[in-house]
Amino acid sequence: MDKQSKTITVAGAGPVGALLSVMLARKGYKVDLFESRADSRKSSIYQGKSINLALSERGWLALQAIGIDDSIRKQAIPMYCRVMHDIEGNLSKLPYGSDNQAIWSVSRSGINEHLISLAEQESLIDVHFEHHLAEVNFNDASCEFVTKDKKTKNHKSDLLIGADGAFSKVRRLAQNLPKQRVSYSLEYMPQSYIELSIAANTDGTHKLEKNALHIWPRKDFMLIALPNTDGSFTCTLFLNQQGEVSFDSLDNKDKVTQFFKDNFSDAMDLLENPVDEFMKKAASPLCLVHIYPWIINNKVALIGDSAHAMVPFYGQGMNCGFEDCRILNELIEPNNHDWDAILEAYQTQRKPNGDAITELAKRNFVEMSDLSGDSNFLLRKKIERKFSEMYPKLWIPLYSMVTFSPNIPYSTALATGDIQNEIMDEIMKLENIHQHWEAPYVYQLLHKLAVEKLSVDELSINKLPTGKEEEQS
Amino acid sequence: MDKQSKTITVAGAGPVGALLSVMLARKGYKVDLFESRADSRKSSIYQGKSINLALSERGWLALQAIGIDDSIRKQAIPMYCRVMHDIEGNLSKLPYGSDNQAIWSVSRSGINEHLISLAEQESLIDVHFEHHLAEVNFNDASCEFVTKDKKTKNHKSDLLIGADGAFSKVRRLAQNLPKQRVSYSLEYMPQSYIELSIAANTDGTHKLEKNALHIWPRKDFMLIALPNTDGSFTCTLFLNQQGEVSFDSLDNKDKVTQFFKDNFSDAMDLLENPVDEFMKKAASPLCLVHIYPWIINNKVALIGDSAHAMVPFYGQGMNCGFEDCRILNELIEPNNHDWDAILEAYQTQRKPNGDAITELAKRNFVEMSDLSGDSNFLLRKKIERKFSEMYPKLWIPLYSMVTFSPNIPYSTALATGDIQNEIMDEIMKLENIHQHWEAPYVYQLLHKLAVEKLSVDELSINKLPTGKEEEQS
Repeated sequence: MDKQSKTITVAGAGPVGALLSVMLARKGYKVDLFESRADSRKSSIYQGKSINLALSERGWLALQAIGIDDSIRKQAIPMYCRVMHDIEGNLSKLPYGSDNQAIWSVSRSGINEHLISLAEQESLIDVHFEHHLAEVNFNDASCEFVTKDKKTKNHKSDLLIGADGAFSKVRRLAQNLPKQRVSYSLEYMPQSYIELSIAANTDGTHKLEKNALHIWPRKDFMLIALPNTDGSFTCTLFLNQQGEVSFDSLDNKDKVTQFFKDNFSDAMDLLENPVDEFMKKAASPLCLVHIYPWIINNKVALIGDSAHAMVPFYGQGMNCGFEDCRILNELIEPNNHDWDAILEAYQTQRKPNGDAITELAKRNFVEMSDLSGDSNFLLRKKIERKFSEMYPKLWIPLYSMVTFSPNIPYSTALATGDIQNEIMDEIMKLENIHQHWEAPYVYQLLHKLAVEKLSVDELSINKLPTGKEEEQS
Repeated sequence: MDKQSKTITVAGAGPVGALLSVMLARKGYKVDLFESRADSRKSSIYQGKSINLALSERGWLALQAIGIDDSIRKQAIPMYCRVMHDIEGNLSKLPYGSDNQAIWSVSRSGINEHLISLAEQESLIDVHFEHHLAEVNFNDASCEFVTKDKKTKNHKSDLLIGADGAFSKVRRLAQNLPKQRVSYSLEYMPQSYIELSIAANTDGTHKLEKNALHIWPRKDFMLIALPNTDGSFTCTLFLNQQGEVSFDSLDNKDKVTQFFKDNFSDAMDLLENPVDEFMKKAASPLCLVHIYPWIINNKVALIGDSAHAMVPFYGQGMNCGFEDCRILNELIEPNNHDWDAILEAYQTQRKPNGDAITELAKRNFVEMSDLSGDSNFLLRKKIERKFSEMYPKLWIPLYSMVTFSPNIPYSTALATGDIQNEIMDEIMKLENIHQHWEAPYVYQLLHKLAVEKLSVDELSINKLPTGKEEEQS
């Protein structure tokens, strides 16, 4: 397949599948976009449940590529900082980046519906709802769908792209191919989660600071809240599935009430029936998925969560999926629409980055849930922030690399972050660092170590400026 | 289930399943041992193929527990060293341990048949061949088997133990349980393998040194040979599946002939039709399997390869499976036959060790295939060996911990080996180490670092003597 006249099937009309379809159609491909669920714009499949996500620079860059960043931004709420609620109800703030940098709370269904409507406007795209993928022929990319009225429908195209999410049917079928040697892992986290909510004030305003992501970090568990445009907050409680304090152990109303009182006293009054909701809802598991290869026979490819499902603790799941789309899209023309070459380059570029952000997201539970409890951690952040302001090219904090620096691949961010961590370990060993953290010698040593270690390391030198140019200016 | 009157089903009558059945029967349990294949003692299912394995101390200890170590040893060939064949056909030796330490080449089918015959002698064991496991009920451990004549047979017991190998049916069924949150990974190595052979001399003697494991290390690929009692050697060629020099690229007789001539000239005359065999055989994949939990509902457990399939590069697959059996067996009486407690302790003890040896085996490909090519590596081994002779309690080389020290858990060996590696990195940085490796200051520094780092580390201090007691004596 090396001409634009070829056809592409996209399985899954979530945000990633819909965005990808628009990109491909605009490159001249005939796209069939299949979705197993009903059209959420017509039948309310979300049942009033408002799942929200944090969009950051990688996501915006992809939306910008199809020109809808401005209209999406109108539905989004910028969150400039984390607001931590300690066990006594005291608040503290930690900015996400520099003054004007924010991550944006968006409604998953809102952005999805926006993208599907956009796809429908493209003459080269046909959207098919309520088509359940049953079989894939990995030799010729043909698919078998089962429709709402239980009819089997065969569909043939030149390429199938599985954008069908964390529990991807395309991936599950690929896993079981006998001769393809598909490596695969599914890892459950010890934590599970349930969603809770905080209603708006009667005048439609927010009950907590609007432009922030709220965290109640309790080390082994945590509650978070993201603002919605209607004044409400969508909250998520992350808690071990098993163990002393867990979804399993909190098995009656009294225990749950006590648990909320003990741990989230300031949220207790704001949350809508947290105890009833806790008792009523089945906790959802959190898992990570790795698979390799992402490309089978140059006929089937995976993208987004189907290729690299991650945990939500870095707010990068959708951002990474959108970046997959942007990169794939950007590879089409330089490779003259030669899809063997496009797919190989896509996999080579994206697989290490999918692995890196999956790892970073996993690690970030500790950072989020343990944030306010550890004064050393907060001091590290303060020192890093100050140093980064002094030498913005030499030192971009890990969170900023991941969230605000789409030109730095996730894999570079991970590797650089590990080196930064080693350097900060050294700094934190300095005598009386809590008293003297603002002293010039701290930043002299930090500069020395950063120039040494960050410039020695190949992984970082390729992508990050060493800061030497700054010293000379 | 907390009384000996209870019944146990073992799925898989390979070496691990047969050994485990004997152990359980001798503790008073009624055991049904099911095997999907025919009885290899009657129908030659191995088709003359002699797969052999390296038995080492962990394996012997388990066989000793049921009193058959002596009789197995009579069918085994001790291998005291690796013999490396370089590209010009020059030989060099590297002992496995101290003078009398060896790993033992045994025939897989021989040891398996020996164990099955032993199981049949136990009045509490029924062995059922040609029973294919079709379904498992994980709530009550009941199973559905399909017999040779396609009849369905239900079997009920109090506990099912899956000893059904790397492609375990019990595990595959467990993976798909919706509510159990079973984490799972299957990872393919880039290498695949085929078996080749070297026939005996006409007088029944061996064509290569008998008491050694022969290696033709060629960095990206390697050939190995293990001796059989009939004078032959079973050889395995490990080679990348894809790439420049690979099973895929060597796709005609001329290329394969040239490949053997270029790389294994001294073996070429000894191997039986290597080129024809190469062309005829489909290369087998190598893969690693991780799963957690190993225990479902306290009704189903996994053991051996079904719980932790590994690559063969440490020669520990069967040894680890046998150790699983020994540990499980040793937990029965201290836990008063309370199987909830036995299974929990078994999983807690064995899971980290399964993970550790799987990791060590994976890493060992580089060590085996790159052995003779690297003079630094050989010098490291020499220095370690000399130091270990000086301070045998302070420094047990990693290979010896894994192979000859069954009292050191695999996980401790892995952690200690990593620290040893760091220490040896320091030593190898000493100026002109190749000239001065025997100088006392090398061993003084090594001693200093070992006492510091090995005794500081919790992982090693628990299990390994620090050597301090030796200094005082």
